[in-house]
Amino acid sequence: MHKLVAVLLLCTAATARADEGMWTYNGFPSAQVEKKYGVKVDQAWLDHVRLSSARLAQGCSASFVSPNGLVLTNHHCVETCLQDISSSNKDYLADGFQAKTAADEVKCPVLEVNQLVEIRDVTARVTKATAGLTGKKFQEALDAENGRIEAECQTSPALRCNVVTLHRGGRYDLYRYQRYQDVRMVFAPEFAIAFFGGDPDNFMFPRYDLDMAIVRVYDGGKPLQAKHHLTWNAAGPKDGDVVFVSGHPGGTDRQLTMAELEYQRDVQMPAVIAMLSELRGAITVYQTRGTEQKRVSSSLLFGVENSLKAYKGERSALADREFYGRKGAAEAAFQKQLAADPKVGPAALQAYADIQRAEDLLRNVRDEVNGVMGASGFMTEYFKIARTLVRGGDERPKASELRLREYQDAQLPAVTLSLFSPAPIDDDFETFKLTWSLTKLRENLGTDHPFVKKVLGKESPAEVAKRLVSGTKLRDVAVRKQLWEGGKGAVDGSQDPMIVLARAIDPDSRAVRRMYEDEIESVVKKGSEAIARARLAIEGTSGAPDATFTLRLSYGTVKGWTEGKKVIPPFTDFAGAFERETGREPYALPRSWLDAKPRLDLQVPFNFVATTDIIGGNSGSPVVDRDGRLVGLVFDGNIWSMGGNYGFDEKVNRTVAVDTAAIIQALDRIYGATRVLEELVPGWKARAGK
Amino acid sequence: MHKLVAVLLLCTAATARADEGMWTYNGFPSAQVEKKYGVKVDQAWLDHVRLSSARLAQGCSASFVSPNGLVLTNHHCVETCLQDISSSNKDYLADGFQAKTAADEVKCPVLEVNQLVEIRDVTARVTKATAGLTGKKFQEALDAENGRIEAECQTSPALRCNVVTLHRGGRYDLYRYQRYQDVRMVFAPEFAIAFFGGDPDNFMFPRYDLDMAIVRVYDGGKPLQAKHHLTWNAAGPKDGDVVFVSGHPGGTDRQLTMAELEYQRDVQMPAVIAMLSELRGAITVYQTRGTEQKRVSSSLLFGVENSLKAYKGERSALADREFYGRKGAAEAAFQKQLAADPKVGPAALQAYADIQRAEDLLRNVRDEVNGVMGASGFMTEYFKIARTLVRGGDERPKASELRLREYQDAQLPAVTLSLFSPAPIDDDFETFKLTWSLTKLRENLGTDHPFVKKVLGKESPAEVAKRLVSGTKLRDVAVRKQLWEGGKGAVDGSQDPMIVLARAIDPDSRAVRRMYEDEIESVVKKGSEAIARARLAIEGTSGAPDATFTLRLSYGTVKGWTEGKKVIPPFTDFAGAFERETGREPYALPRSWLDAKPRLDLQVPFNFVATTDIIGGNSGSPVVDRDGRLVGLVFDGNIWSMGGNYGFDEKVNRTVAVDTAAIIQALDRIYGATRVLEELVPGWKARAGK
Repeated sequence: MHKLVAVLLLCTAATARADEGMWTYNGFPSAQVEKKYGVKVDQAWLDHVRLSSARLAQGCSASFVSPNGLVLTNHHCVETCLQDISSSNKDYLADGFQAKTAADEVKCPVLEVNQLVEIRDVTARVTKATAGLTGKKFQEALDAENGRIEAECQTSPALRCNVVTLHRGGRYDLYRYQRYQDVRMVFAPEFAIAFFGGDPDNFMFPRYDLDMAIVRVYDGGKPLQAKHHLTWNAAGPKDGDVVFVSGHPGGTDRQLTMAELEYQRDVQMPAVIAMLSELRGAITVYQTRGTEQKRVSSSLLFGVENSLKAYKGERSALADREFYGRKGAAEAAFQKQLAADPKVGPAALQAYADIQRAEDLLRNVRDEVNGVMGASGFMTEYFKIARTLVRGGDERPKASELRLREYQDAQLPAVTLSLFSPAPIDDDFETFKLTWSLTKLRENLGTDHPFVKKVLGKESPAEVAKRLVSGTKLRDVAVRKQLWEGGKGAVDGSQDPMIVLARAIDPDSRAVRRMYEDEIESVVKKGSEAIARARLAIEGTSGAPDATFTLRLSYGTVKGWTEGKKVIPPFTDFAGAFERETGREPYALPRSWLDAKPRLDLQVPFNFVATTDIIGGNSGSPVVDRDGRLVGLVFDGNIWSMGGNYGFDEKVNRTVAVDTAAIIQALDRIYGATRVLEELVPGWKARAGK
Repeated sequence: MHKLVAVLLLCTAATARADEGMWTYNGFPSAQVEKKYGVKVDQAWLDHVRLSSARLAQGCSASFVSPNGLVLTNHHCVETCLQDISSSNKDYLADGFQAKTAADEVKCPVLEVNQLVEIRDVTARVTKATAGLTGKKFQEALDAENGRIEAECQTSPALRCNVVTLHRGGRYDLYRYQRYQDVRMVFAPEFAIAFFGGDPDNFMFPRYDLDMAIVRVYDGGKPLQAKHHLTWNAAGPKDGDVVFVSGHPGGTDRQLTMAELEYQRDVQMPAVIAMLSELRGAITVYQTRGTEQKRVSSSLLFGVENSLKAYKGERSALADREFYGRKGAAEAAFQKQLAADPKVGPAALQAYADIQRAEDLLRNVRDEVNGVMGASGFMTEYFKIARTLVRGGDERPKASELRLREYQDAQLPAVTLSLFSPAPIDDDFETFKLTWSLTKLRENLGTDHPFVKKVLGKESPAEVAKRLVSGTKLRDVAVRKQLWEGGKGAVDGSQDPMIVLARAIDPDSRAVRRMYEDEIESVVKKGSEAIARARLAIEGTSGAPDATFTLRLSYGTVKGWTEGKKVIPPFTDFAGAFERETGREPYALPRSWLDAKPRLDLQVPFNFVATTDIIGGNSGSPVVDRDGRLVGLVFDGNIWSMGGNYGFDEKVNRTVAVDTAAIIQALDRIYGATRVLEELVPGWKARAGK
């Protein structure tokens, strides 16, 4: 019944979108919030919450929650770490992890925490550098200038500097982060309660998930002294409370042109959904081969299912005639305004036409872009490593701003963190993924495509996969280090089969990338910028920019919603989790919970929803109250929040969070994690009478 | 590069659609064909080819090719039979089958051959019965009248009578078939050559497939004496030759309204493609569990992959802005004509609005319709059997025209053929499919849906599947017979867990079906009829009706095509197959071919393409020359032919067929099938000097 309800609500919601917006910290509408909610969000408040917020470079949000560098995020944000520190003997992902002492805290092989320390407007400098340029020249000038700005900023490997494109090119801001790469696991509950309800309940509500994990940031080998961190409101929020979410929404598409939306609706989304669906089916059955196979593939399966459900939610919004029609009508109305504006109109109208042409081209070359440029056929860690080594060898001798952008100086620390990760790689699963993806490559490009012939020759996908995975030595981090440090000479001399492959196909891959960047990406970028400028000129900067995986602040209230006649209350409690329990995955509570039941206050709130505007990437974001104290931990949005990619609907779009009261009860009465709890809520032990 | 090319070609093709049309035998445009190609297609020609044509009731086409009842069709049309007559000891699907003597011909458990013996116009009678009715009343009157007409016609179980809705209700014709249920396997080659190139090459060309099989129809325990059968043109066709395809295209959607196309593009196709993709991934990995698992699941995997590729091709056509736009423009133009026509206009315009409303409703109830009415969660043969028994018990006591339509008298022979099939059922695979589909049911309807709770209770999908499959006795055909013959009393008394389940959910299922039929199906049917009548009144009957899995005749020429600068010639030869061979699936030629290579004339044509207008269901159709002699065997269309569902484009839409010359060379020099060959081409042995 969902879709029609959405249509009706979306139609009437246009007049009441007050809580819409993932706002930048230097553009937060404090006056508006004070007027609506009577809450004063001043600069000190903003600075404190900003500096208490954190980003996990691999794609999540988090917050500093103790003076000694404890960081709170979601269990699903550190799944890879939990898998990496596990072995066939000990499965921390399934069983949970708790460092009883400081010495037991284990380093996550690939986990980088970023803290946003400064934002600076660089629009004038960027637009000057690209003035009058188009296509390839535009892209090159933009990349080069951004590269220079970032290089100037990044005076140490402990900094991360990124020029962020806001309003699709209407504004460019330089974001400077403190970068921490020594991050250690402190606490994680069992997978079964972190993801209780599993995929069926994902993006749904009511929910009963303790989707939390605590890591600690180390600096110079010691726990980071975090001047700014959130203090805990141990009671959690109440129905109707004003709350804020500070996090890193990954991206929204609210400012896309209809040409781009059409491509997403008709080409990209259906293809990606089909691909992920097939991969899901394959991994699901792969998991039945044994417990070890299940363990090594769980993280990928979770990612696939999560993306799949999100994409389906987004696609539903685009397939909604009313919603899509309204988007189209808005664009047509704006184009009419442009046609009447001789100053900014012509360039913007031309931009619409250019973008349409680029999207049409993309339809035709999509398979080549994915297969040849994107290397979609090589779904294995080994290929990623091999390509990084090959390209690292080619790129690093160049001046930073002339390199492929992911090898510019600002990016290299992240590149090596990943490249030298000691995380274990499972050859059976790598062979499985590579076989599957090579089969898809042949299917998508066709058996007779020269690239396919180059890769497969007369071998079958399974044979190629087996030969490459069993033959490569890249599992050994020392081998990677040697090839990285040996540079191009060492890489060119390598006979490692995965390196040989990556080297052989790199010219093909770069050629398609050049075409894509010159004829599609740069055209869209340039065009978007022209449209954004025209929009700013005509409408001003009244709205928040599309999300860009940079720090944003949303506001709203704790509030349930209704679907037809069904009222969905904003809170669940511990009692509900025990009622939902069936003893079978994904509704099986862990042993620890069943044992602890008599000790629990079942009326304590568990999860709650709020009207804050979020999107994927916000996972792990802190929910804070009017005083900037922690009251919750974002771990999901409801299914309606997926449509939020294209537009916010306050009536049904909801953030889903774990209540601080739930975290505290669980740490205390289920896990006996007193060391951690005392650090999070100083004096807790005394107050609890322990 | 495919899609844009399609756009460009489709745009210019509108003026040259001469060969479009899957024509009924009583509406074939002989004059038009004579004018264009100088070929006289008179009544005798039509009668002979019609009576030589055959339909496989399970969904394919075929032709009588010898006086003693040999029937030629595709290997992929009899895959189920080959699987059914195989065992873990002997895999006829993989290894091929050849009955060296008449006594070796083995009965296919479920294979019904139909021969169209009469077509009669019953439009006046049907429209009279439904005059002035709408919604549920309309549907009931239509079903009842069709049921009466069919019952009157069907004077013996050896007849099959169907009222066929043509032009979406503009015309109703009664089709009377001779029905043959004793069909025996005579010859099939190895799967590896029948489907050489596998899924990657499916719907592609050039091709090298011997996708053929020969069965024999028995009547009264003896080979059928087929008065009408096709004689062989052993040389096959030449480039440019006029050819005809006589077969049973399953369905096209060229006359759908935009509301229906939109539903297909935005809702139905994406959902089905995602579902099939996931199933494909799951079965592909299931197959790796062992050779037995691979054997029992191959037929389903083929079906899934084949459908998937077809749907993707169709969806691409709908996602093509120009194509879709042109469809929309045509509808708008017709509606303008309607608005100016006070006689037929108002009813037709109202029908457009009604259909739109029905399609919007369908969006919201789609998951219920599939899950509760369609029983999509019970993907196992056992459930099909159980539901047939439960419903058979409930329905048969009623008067035929008051029953659910699939239990009316005309349908019962097909029902029992399937119900009493001794085809083996593999419990491991049934459990696998049922587990998977129950998981999808929960996912699609949600864990809290009452229907899901009723089915799963506190058990997991895997537990329910295991309990049902291991507990049911329906594997035993005698048990089925007993329950069928015992009627409702016996079924109600059964404690078989699959029967218990089918019985428990039948009220839910029937309730959703009623809603669907009353509020959606009948509204669309009635509306389509109104639009069709208006169209006939305004435009006349100039075009062929949409395909309906009834016998049609298409015409065209043997002709290659071009894609951009690439010229694709119309013929492949045996040499090409050996060049493409890699020794690895799906490009591994069978041993028999490798051994026979020195004996083969490698220049003999293998597959060819023609401009004849076909669609799924045409598999197995004979290609005949101007003299009505067999020159080829349709087994596929190229990828462009999938868009043919919505419109025919002569520049690129091609039928793909096996050349008769290839069949003869293979039977002779590879398989030494002289008994069969001598029957197909009398005197062959003598002519070949054997």
